[in-house]
Amino acid sequence: MRFHTRKWVKPEDLNPNGTLFGGRLLAWIDEEAALYAIIQLENPKVVTKFISEIDFKSSAKKGDIVEIGIEVVKFGRSSITLKSEVRNKMTRETILTVDNIVMVNLDKNGNALPHGKQEIEFVKDRLDSDED
Amino acid sequence: MRFHTRKWVKPEDLNPNGTLFGGRLLAWIDEEAALYAIIQLENPKVVTKFISEIDFKSSAKKGDIVEIGIEVVKFGRSSITLKSEVRNKMTRETILTVDNIVMVNLDKNGNALPHGKQEIEFVKDRLDSDED
Amino acid sequence: MRFHTRKWVKPEDLNPNGTLFGGRLLAWIDEEAALYAIIQLENPKVVTKFISEIDFKSSAKKGDIVEIGIEVVKFGRSSITLKSEVRNKMTRETILTVDNIVMVNLDKNGNALPHGKQEIEFVKDRLDSDED
Amino acid sequence: MRFHTRKWVKPEDLNPNGTLFGGRLLAWIDEEAALYAIIQLENPKVVTKFISEIDFKSSAKKGDIVEIGIEVVKFGRSSITLKSEVRNKMTRETILTVDNIVMVNLDKNGNALPHGKQEIEFVKDRLDSDED
Amino acid sequence: MRFHTRKWVKPEDLNPNGTLFGGRLLAWIDEEAALYAIIQLENPKVVTKFISEIDFKSSAKKGDIVEIGIEVVKFGRSSITLKSEVRNKMTRETILTVDNIVMVNLDKNGNALPHGKQEIEFVKDRLDSDED
Amino acid sequence: MRFHTRKWVKPEDLNPNGTLFGGRLLAWIDEEAALYAIIQLENPKVVTKFISEIDFKSSAKKGDIVEIGIEVVKFGRSSITLKSEVRNKMTRETILTVDNIVMVNLDKNGNALPHGKQEIEFVKDRLDSDED
Repeated sequence: MRFHTRKWVKPEDLNPNGTLFGGRLLAWIDEEAALYAIIQLENPKVVTKFISEIDFKSSAKKGDIVEIGIEVVKFGRSSITLKSEVRNKMTRETILTVDNIVMVNLDKNGNALPHGKQEIEFVKDRLDSDED
Repeated sequence: MRFHTRKWVKPEDLNPNGTLFGGRLLAWIDEEAALYAIIQLENPKVVTKFISEIDFKSSAKKGDIVEIGIEVVKFGRSSITLKSEVRNKMTRETILTVDNIVMVNLDKNGNALPHGKQEIEFVKDRLDSDED
Repeated sequence: MRFHTRKWVKPEDLNPNGTLFGGRLLAWIDEEAALYAIIQLENPKVVTKFISEIDFKSSAKKGDIVEIGIEVVKFGRSSITLKSEVRNKMTRETILTVDNIVMVNLDKNGNALPHGKQEIEFVKDRLDSDED
Repeated sequence: MRFHTRKWVKPEDLNPNGTLFGGRLLAWIDEEAALYAIIQLENPKVVTKFISEIDFKSSAKKGDIVEIGIEVVKFGRSSITLKSEVRNKMTRETILTVDNIVMVNLDKNGNALPHGKQEIEFVKDRLDSDED
Repeated sequence: MRFHTRKWVKPEDLNPNGTLFGGRLLAWIDEEAALYAIIQLENPKVVTKFISEIDFKSSAKKGDIVEIGIEVVKFGRSSITLKSEVRNKMTRETILTVDNIVMVNLDKNGNALPHGKQEIEFVKDRLDSDED
Repeated sequence: MRFHTRKWVKPEDLNPNGTLFGGRLLAWIDEEAALYAIIQLENPKVVTKFISEIDFKSSAKKGDIVEIGIEVVKFGRSSITLKSEVRNKMTRETILTVDNIVMVNLDKNGNALPHGKQEIEFVKDRLDSDED
């Protein structure tokens, strides 16, 4: 799994007990899954359709740095299924895992649209080939 | 299921496609589950431990009013399991359902603490009995 | 008065003295009044026109759960007048009261528009009658 | 009345109808009143106790610049009463007026504390006299 | 330099070490520069093009009141160059200075547009002359 | 330069002209620089001391994905100097560059503290060696 986005846990991210607010963490994962799907499917109109069980294994506290990992589980016809792990950057302790996040590719009217993708692509390669 | 908290979908709650950002919705549910658990368990130190599958059935758009319902599934020894439904207030269309949200009751050191509760209580009754 | 929306007082809601920031509380009430008016008047375009005296009776602190009550005072021709009370969910202590919040029903051009409503309606009844 | 703080109305400040969200405006006024009182009373622990009638005379839209004016109405024993006007910076059109905002000076325990002030002071003068 | 906008440093503005988050401060300055340029150039479509060296001289903590000063350095053909100082309102200690913030005047298509301004104007004078 | 953190430009990130608010972008860079310095210096108490010229080369719009790159320029005695580039993830167009961001390592009292670091380290290697 590749970990990209990092967050610094600031006071605005805490629940009243002083640990990372779970809702904030879920919002971070949803954004990361959405932008990852957009990059892979090359379509800005992608929505979250399903999220499998979320297991909160440990917490984070003010000042911690967390990083969010995303990996492709499979390419569907008009969807992409991702898995995610969030961990503490400094200790590598797992904070949360989700096995399946299903993102659906939509057309302008909001209907499912086949995306024609079958494997992970890197933006770098796309841009290089564009130059050929 | 009883629906309490209502949200007015404002521009700050939208994703770039102009519909309700899924991450915002998840944060709203997590807050509602947390405060519901705090009320029932009479302990401010409660954390989200587990969320079962989340099925996004429909979306919401700017200006919609959504309401968040919570219901107790069961009381554990040091936990409480809730279910939630989010729906459009005006049309009653279901936006999202979650069957199990497990909230854990903690002591001051962050360890699981038995809460001794076995059924739903209403704050009104607690306060009345306090007056006896 | 019926109390619906509940808020969990988080660090982001505090003033520098560590109590609930008054401005945040006012924003919560304004949103609740707006969405209540929208539900009753069945028109999404409703604006706050007037708020009567606001008396801050007690404060709230981090981790408190506050609930916001709204009640209709009267139906005007193109307006609706509401009253509101905010209280601590656990202790029922009153935090703030407002006797009159006047919300105005607008047409697409932003002009006052008669709404034809004279009494409180419940969404449930509207939807049931639609089914008949 | 002196107008100091200015705000640029950004998308995050709008209600779903695309005009400045009233709740955001109230939060801006409350912050301005609080910091004005803190400057005058030379005490960081000041809370909003009462706000008189608020009349929303006109609205603001995305991209507008609004400025917030504050003026002292009177000095009480442990309070200070302010008035406020919010207006559109470019057109000088009044957006909102409030005649009385009562801020109370508190001691460390949160009890009203006489402040000994009877007239407006400027920070500049205080600092100059400190240098004598 | 004239200081207008004031901010009350609230918990949501802090970094995890409990001092004012530098990023928040930069966002405040950018907003102030943008709205100052909009007022002077009488065009709502103005963007930040360049910011010179930023020297963080001191910090601010929760409850501090900071004020943001802006001064015109020069009027270009389609730009305006500003300087800024942020200081602690109560102590007048300098928090940060920036010598050059270049704001560019744009037309509807986002291209640089000559603004025809050569000196500072006050809104009051514009409105007065409009009345003649 | 390595690009890690990615952001999805949402409505809450826009200025009134509908492009990415410069202040938001600066806040994102400051957070990324801070957390990068914390990882390298292995000290959570790090502050931004200096930012060199910032050149806004292009803008971003709603729905764009931007990624933030950070690279070490040099290790000082109690500081670390970073450079940053922000670019559009899909087109690789440069949005902004900054040549020098000086972060200072502090002790508990807020004084500069020598950090003893001279080269980039990876968390993975630190954790592996801990296991030896």
